[in-house]
Amino acid sequence: MTLSEAIARYLPAVEDAMRCILSPPSDEFKRFYGMMRYHQGWLDEALQPQAGASGKRVRPVLCLLCCQAVGGQYESATSLAAAIELMHSFTLVHDDIEDRSETRRHRRTVWAVWGEAHGVNVGDAIFAAAHLGLYQLSTKVQPALALELAAAFDDTCLRLCEGQYLDMDFEGRREVSVSEYMTMIERKTAALMALAAWSGARAGGADRRRAEAFRGLGLELGLAFQIQDDLLGVWGDEQETGKSTSTDIASAKKTLPYILALETLPAPLAQELTGLYSLSERGPAEVQRARELIELSRARERCEQAAQEHHGAALEHLRASQAEPGAAQALVELIEQLGGRRA
Amino acid sequence: MTLSEAIARYLPAVEDAMRCILSPPSDEFKRFYGMMRYHQGWLDEALQPQAGASGKRVRPVLCLLCCQAVGGQYESATSLAAAIELMHSFTLVHDDIEDRSETRRHRRTVWAVWGEAHGVNVGDAIFAAAHLGLYQLSTKVQPALALELAAAFDDTCLRLCEGQYLDMDFEGRREVSVSEYMTMIERKTAALMALAAWSGARAGGADRRRAEAFRGLGLELGLAFQIQDDLLGVWGDEQETGKSTSTDIASAKKTLPYILALETLPAPLAQELTGLYSLSERGPAEVQRARELIELSRARERCEQAAQEHHGAALEHLRASQAEPGAAQALVELIEQLGGRRA
Repeated sequence: MTLSEAIARYLPAVEDAMRCILSPPSDEFKRFYGMMRYHQGWLDEALQPQAGASGKRVRPVLCLLCCQAVGGQYESATSLAAAIELMHSFTLVHDDIEDRSETRRHRRTVWAVWGEAHGVNVGDAIFAAAHLGLYQLSTKVQPALALELAAAFDDTCLRLCEGQYLDMDFEGRREVSVSEYMTMIERKTAALMALAAWSGARAGGADRRRAEAFRGLGLELGLAFQIQDDLLGVWGDEQETGKSTSTDIASAKKTLPYILALETLPAPLAQELTGLYSLSERGPAEVQRARELIELSRARERCEQAAQEHHGAALEHLRASQAEPGAAQALVELIEQLGGRRA
Repeated sequence: MTLSEAIARYLPAVEDAMRCILSPPSDEFKRFYGMMRYHQGWLDEALQPQAGASGKRVRPVLCLLCCQAVGGQYESATSLAAAIELMHSFTLVHDDIEDRSETRRHRRTVWAVWGEAHGVNVGDAIFAAAHLGLYQLSTKVQPALALELAAAFDDTCLRLCEGQYLDMDFEGRREVSVSEYMTMIERKTAALMALAAWSGARAGGADRRRAEAFRGLGLELGLAFQIQDDLLGVWGDEQETGKSTSTDIASAKKTLPYILALETLPAPLAQELTGLYSLSERGPAEVQRARELIELSRARERCEQAAQEHHGAALEHLRASQAEPGAAQALVELIEQLGGRRA
């Protein structure tokens, strides 16, 4: 099975489950649920149907591939996959408020359209609704297993919040170590990928031991993906990423290239770089100079090496998982696409 | 059993369960969990221990009383009661952001101390953690029942969000009907009381039919409580409530006295009242005039009557529930205290 075939098979079922979960209970809540549905890319700002504005749905695809990889029926896990995507979705609604981001995927964010108060409340409602999808699992698997997956679901959400806390905390700090950075992305990005892979395998019938290989796969894939994203934030191809290059430098995000540059540059240059990141704003000249300093360090090489290591570890876990060949083929493709070399 | 005896018995166990749920996983998250613990009233702004700043914990007490009322051991439901209080707690953190409230119970709100971004994230984390408490139930009751309670838990949270949506929507509207208002408070206030009572009874061993009486008790108690609160917002004794009288008029909240006044006043006076509520601010003279208009109408009498009706209905459900005498005595006291005549 190719990745495209898997996506074509899974996504309609996942979207259906998500639409069902986000259905207004009565007409007086149509506008409120409309806001939730807008964020999924199904409606425009006037709450009229819109096509082609949804995200890539990477996490549900990963979840269902891991379900099939252990011999499970993907249909038994679509509500789980939908719940995971909705958890991701709610964190984006709130992250956009926390980061003051006014656009996402070329559309205005929920808070930018309806204000912050509705934005906070819409995110809360999506998260509560996500759980209702999750509990539907109990019609497909044993109640005890459904509860085990539910506990992992909220445990993961707590990790996401911890990651978000660290990310915000880093903004106000001069120094962040590589190990602190790894703790942050492990929680903010990789934990949810790990949940998607692990819970898909568990719902598909994997025992705890075998499911650990899938958790490892998701975790390493998440780490590789985030480090690739950091690389693209400094050296990405504008054409390909849709963002201008050096955006992370312009906004002084303490991503891995910056942290590694500080570790490897001689003290005076490291100080200069810290100084540039401490400015309240950076113009083109400052961005250019910061970029030069990062280039002078061995940051890029070490970042690429780190991404490669996590990418390799994800493939290693896939081998250890003894995945069914069809799903394994699509999983390799997914790992290459998200965690492989792009920069 | 008196209500004080019940509170003295239950609260230490509930607080312990809450403290356990909100324990930092490692030192690097001490400050983050400190923010969550600050909101519980356990720590001050410097994150040092503080006593006497917690809320009344009405919902967990109601939950455990209903558990005992059907012959259950309250110990089997303390994690459920803690989860319900944490759901309430997280909605307060977010409501304070949505309403721009800078103080709560004479302390600065989470967002006022640490900023909005942390406020949103702290609320999310409390809600995720609440679920982890909820799932601990599965060590005390059958997994299928734990899942039933979990589904009701998130269904209720979605109702809370719907209520909050309506409340915000009302702010921008000239007219709100009594029935719309009832839909709003049923969701925003009464649904969580209904959950507390119903789930306590279910966890204590009540079958679905008997548990419905407890749901009704909680719902009616919640409605009576909210209408009493609305009465106090216009006619409350400053000494007793800690708020100045007429606060709801000053902030133009569309509470029941206002809605009923508009329904019963002659058209010109109703128009005058709508006009006063449409001003961007109301000085003492405008507040005084609005108050006079509300007094002129039959709003107060009708509000008191509505509160009495729901208060009576709560007692009626209590009789139908065939509660054990000890718990019943404390439940009557709770109903009198929260839903009885105070204004």
